[in-house]
Formats: sequence, structure tokens, C-alpha cells
Amino acid sequence: MKTVKAYAAPSATDPLIPTTIERRDVGAKDVLIKIAYAGICHSDIHTVRGEWGPQQYPLTVGHEIVGVVEEVGSEATRHKVGDRVGVGCMVNSCRECANCQQGEEQYCLNGNVGTYGATDRDGTITQGGYSTHIVVDEDFVLTVPESIPYEAAAPLLCAGITTYSPLSHWNAGPGKKVAVVGMGGLGHMAVKIASAMGAEVTVLSQSLSKQEDGKRFGAEHYYATSDPDTFKQLTNTFDLIINTVSAKIDLDAHLGLLGLNGTMVNVGAPADALPLHVFTLFNQRRSFAGSGIGGIRETQEMLDFCAEHGIAPEIELISADAINEAYERVLSSDVRYRFVIDTATLG
Amino acid sequence: MKTVKAYAAPSATDPLIPTTIERRDVGAKDVLIKIAYAGICHSDIHTVRGEWGPQQYPLTVGHEIVGVVEEVGSEATRHKVGDRVGVGCMVNSCRECANCQQGEEQYCLNGNVGTYGATDRDGTITQGGYSTHIVVDEDFVLTVPESIPYEAAAPLLCAGITTYSPLSHWNAGPGKKVAVVGMGGLGHMAVKIASAMGAEVTVLSQSLSKQEDGKRFGAEHYYATSDPDTFKQLTNTFDLIINTVSAKIDLDAHLGLLGLNGTMVNVGAPADALPLHVFTLFNQRRSFAGSGIGGIRETQEMLDFCAEHGIAPEIELISADAINEAYERVLSSDVRYRFVIDTATLG
Repeated sequence: MKTVKAYAAPSATDPLIPTTIERRDVGAKDVLIKIAYAGICHSDIHTVRGEWGPQQYPLTVGHEIVGVVEEVGSEATRHKVGDRVGVGCMVNSCRECANCQQGEEQYCLNGNVGTYGATDRDGTITQGGYSTHIVVDEDFVLTVPESIPYEAAAPLLCAGITTYSPLSHWNAGPGKKVAVVGMGGLGHMAVKIASAMGAEVTVLSQSLSKQEDGKRFGAEHYYATSDPDTFKQLTNTFDLIINTVSAKIDLDAHLGLLGLNGTMVNVGAPADALPLHVFTLFNQRRSFAGSGIGGIRETQEMLDFCAEHGIAPEIELISADAINEAYERVLSSDVRYRFVIDTATLG
Repeated sequence: MKTVKAYAAPSATDPLIPTTIERRDVGAKDVLIKIAYAGICHSDIHTVRGEWGPQQYPLTVGHEIVGVVEEVGSEATRHKVGDRVGVGCMVNSCRECANCQQGEEQYCLNGNVGTYGATDRDGTITQGGYSTHIVVDEDFVLTVPESIPYEAAAPLLCAGITTYSPLSHWNAGPGKKVAVVGMGGLGHMAVKIASAMGAEVTVLSQSLSKQEDGKRFGAEHYYATSDPDTFKQLTNTFDLIINTVSAKIDLDAHLGLLGLNGTMVNVGAPADALPLHVFTLFNQRRSFAGSGIGGIRETQEMLDFCAEHGIAPEIELISADAINEAYERVLSSDVRYRFVIDTATLG
């Protein structure tokens, strides 16, 4: 066991505080990572505050992790000491079910093990990346190409893969019209990735306030969803819509923007049920889908794609003592476009 | 102009009565069809009763039509006098939009012209198949293979294509697990077609009362949706679900039966909005889609497929004076599985 510095939530209602947590001994197939940076994802806030179900406290969150390998287990062969690596939203899965067997561990039929707040296969509760070190099975550790700016790499492990996966699965590319709903942490990555894939990208944002950024990230068009004309003007237009907004939206209005055989994919998930008219789907043979993160193989593919295309998230680097303030700014959408914690400032 | 016998609704509330209607002169590209049989579709009832919007009365419905070519226009080349032909849910479209150009006239961006109750491109209101004759542009007239039993062929033009199209589009076939929700006019055709395509077919019906029929039509499994165990037992199972039920169903419960990358396609459309939890779609990367009839080329493909595989609807042949009674039986699901009117009995 190794005691390491961390920031943790003592309860669902208290602010996060500096503390220490235990990391398991490095097993034969494990990798010990000295964490350099950890991104702040909206899911972290939902989870520590118990909004997605009750948690065991204290809880350390964070599932956008990059760092350097400090030690490897006796049978670990995928990574070596000194490698720049990353860990995303999951640290284990059953590896035996049909989905794991085809590299879709995120949809493990026995349940993947989340990077924090989940019961690991050894019975312990996983603790996330707002911490100086983490021990992870090598199969769930990604290689982070050196050409990706070190400080900015962390959000790729969640925001990057969460948008890359549906864009890839639904074939965003040349000749395809892709809309991205929302221009936050996920949305801005979706714009950059879809654009690099060769698609014609349109941003649908609440207002036009981030229009200049959107165009700089690769969008060709930018519309405000607060303007009802947007929905008239863009009827039957898109092949693919990636909806990154977790708040309730008018599903029928957004689905109506899809052209023949078009699909809208939600990567943001409102907790409540949303009303949907089936007639909206009949027209143009439209689909409404969901997508959650991506598999390990695909996450590596995404990192390599971003390295090749010079893509990195836009970040604001903060010290650990600014985490609670950063949470408030995330909740008020006051971040362009992702907070990243410099874990050297922990404790 | 030609005056022909028909059965028409005088209003949204009166029973259908025998009458005559006018058919246009046979134009250069038209085909005059002597109708032999017309199927009764639930849509006919919705439409004449004004449940899908106001109508102009008197209105003759019916969009499952088979008959014989009696006359062809001077420039019509696709069909000749004496051919056995069919007409389905549409009789025209713009033919110029991107969707028409790719043979998806059902999704015509300028609106296809429905077989009844629609404004045709000449400004007249179209009148359907409960009639002795109809004049239709040759491009919207299908060839009905002689090997399909004449009396039973009509329902293929709506119930057949409405289920064939999504089964084909979403690749039902060997190795695929397909569920059919509902065992009515559409459902029983979905079972027959999916089975002929080589898929492993499961019926999800309210009760087990039609189980024997379902197995005879090609289903390997049959479950009652009134039994909550069905939903536990079949979680994450299907590649494709065809939902033929127009009534409200629990979307989350049904979508939960889809396995990785599975799609549920509604071909039945409840008028009201249905609540849906996006989290249900996240899991297993599920999709919820809609599908409306099929294009002309695909409808011909379906007819040829049914001829090749010896597939025909199960029908109950009625005379015209039994139409109103048949409507009541359709509404109480008391039909196995489609009423077909012998149009020789008209008037």
C-alpha cells in the first residue's frame, strides 16, 4: 500500500479538501502512474454531490488523467517506466463478455469498473485522478503521444473519446454534415475532431457568444438555438448531430434538423425522461441514439488521431486549491473549455 | 373522366357507403387499373375519421391495391394491358429532390402524394382503392408477381413494405436476433419477412394467444409483454426490434432489450409524445428510429422477395358491405391478420 496526496469530497455537500488516500501495491499486471494533470469533468461534480446515486465518502474523483509511469508490475509489458500515459473513465472490466471481447469494454455486460466511486474486482472502492499517483491495470492505461501538449492532454481521456467515438461510429467525414449541439468541454472537442475528420461542421449553441472560437476550432457554420429561425432554416439538413448538452432540450425540434437516414447522438444525459414524438423519427427515417465514452482500443486510436491532426483541448490550468471555485464555474458554464488541475500543487 | 363505383365516407362520423367517384382520363404516362382487391389498413380508419387531420368528404380510402391493367397511356412503357399490378401508399412525388433521385420517394422533400386524401400535383384530392378502378402514373405502379396469391397480395403494398423496408435497411439476416412487437397486420408480415431473411425471430405480443400462429409464420420464440419477467429475461438481447404497435408502450423497457448497437424501429406511431430516458440509449449504444413505408424500387424488391420466398399475408376476404363491420373488428384487434375487400362486390 502506498499513501498518496489527493483532494477528496468528505460528503455530498462539503467542499473538496486536501487529504491522503491509499493506493494498492503494484500487482504483476499493474502500472503505477505519477499523475501530472487531471481534468475536471461535469460528471465529477454530479458524482461527488450524489446526483447520480449515493456514494461512499471520502471520495476522490477525476477520470481525465495523464502522467508518467513510475513503476511496472513483473508481468506488465505494455508500458515502461518513463512513458507518458493516460487513464480515462474506466480501470477494469470483465474481459470475458461478448462486448469486452470485441474491445467495447465501456459496454461490458458485467459492468465496467469506473475510475472512481466504483467497486473494483478486489472489492475496494476506486479513487480517481485528483491525486498524485494511481495504480491501474496496464490494459486500461493509454499511451499519450508526446506531440500532444502535456497540460492539455488530460481532457482527451473523457471529453475527447466521448465525442470521437460517436463521430467515428456514425462515420463523420468528407461529404457529411455534422452538427454539434453545445460548445462546452465536450462540444468544443466534437467540433475539432469532426472538422479534422473532414466533415462540414455546424455549431448549434444557445447564443452566438462563442462563435469566433467555434470557427477557429473548425466549424463552418454557427447558429443560435435561442433563435426559432434556426430550426426552420436547418430542417432536414444534417447527417449526424452530436448533442453534448445534459440539460433538457426539445428533442423533436432538434431531430427535425436531421436529413434522410440522419442520427442524433446524445453524449449528454439529462436525468429526467424527455418527451419524443415518434412521427418526428418517421420523417426522413431518423434515429436517436446514445453513446458512452469508448473502448480502450478506440481511446488509443483517438489519442493517435489527435496527435496526427494537432488537436488538443482548450484548457485553463488551475492549482488544487482552486478546485471548488472551478466547480462553481463549471456549473455556471464559465469555462473555456476545460479546467485541468496541476497535481504538483496537491496537498 | 370516368365514373366508377366506390365505397366512401360521407363525413368523419358516418359509416362508409356505396357511391361513385370520378377518375381522370388516362394521361400519356398513366395506367388505368381495374382493381380486384383492396386491403383495409388501420390508417384508413384514422384518416376517414379525421384523427390524423381534417379531410375533404366524401373520401374513398384504401392504399393496398391490386388489379389488372386495363389501359395504358401513349407514352407509358412500364406496364401493359393485362399485367397484374399493385398500388401502395403513394401515387406521386416531386421526383426532383435528393431523396426522390435516390429512389426514396416516401421521404420526398416536397412531400409525396398519398393514395387518398392528398392533393395531387393537378390540384385534385386523391381517392383510394375501395373502388373498381384507379388511374395512376406508371412510375408508381408495381408489378405483382403471378406466384403471389391474388387475393392475398394487396396487403403487401402497405403492411408488407412497411415492415420489409426497416428489416432490409437495418440488415435483418442470418446471425441477427430480431424481435417483432405486436402480432397484427404489420407484425405478422414482419415475422414472415424477417424469418425469410434468415434472422432469428422473437415475437413480443401482449399475450400468448397467437403463439401458435407466430411459430407457424417463422418465429423461434414468443413472449408476452404483459409478463414483467419477459423484460428481465431478454435484457440486452436483440440486434433489431420492429415495433408495430401504435399504442403507447414503455419505450425504456423495450429499448432495454437491445444489445450492443441495437436499434428499435417504430413503424407504428402513437399520436402523443412518449417519455424516454436518454440513459437507456447510452447503455449498449442503442438507437431508436422510425421508418415509413418504402420507396417504389424497394417496394418492387419486396414483392419479388415475397414471390421468391412464398410469402403472403394471412387475410380474411370480405365483400364491400362488410367494410364498416370490419372497421370495428380492426379497432378491437379482432382480425387474423388483414381484411381484404373483394372489389367485385362494390356497389
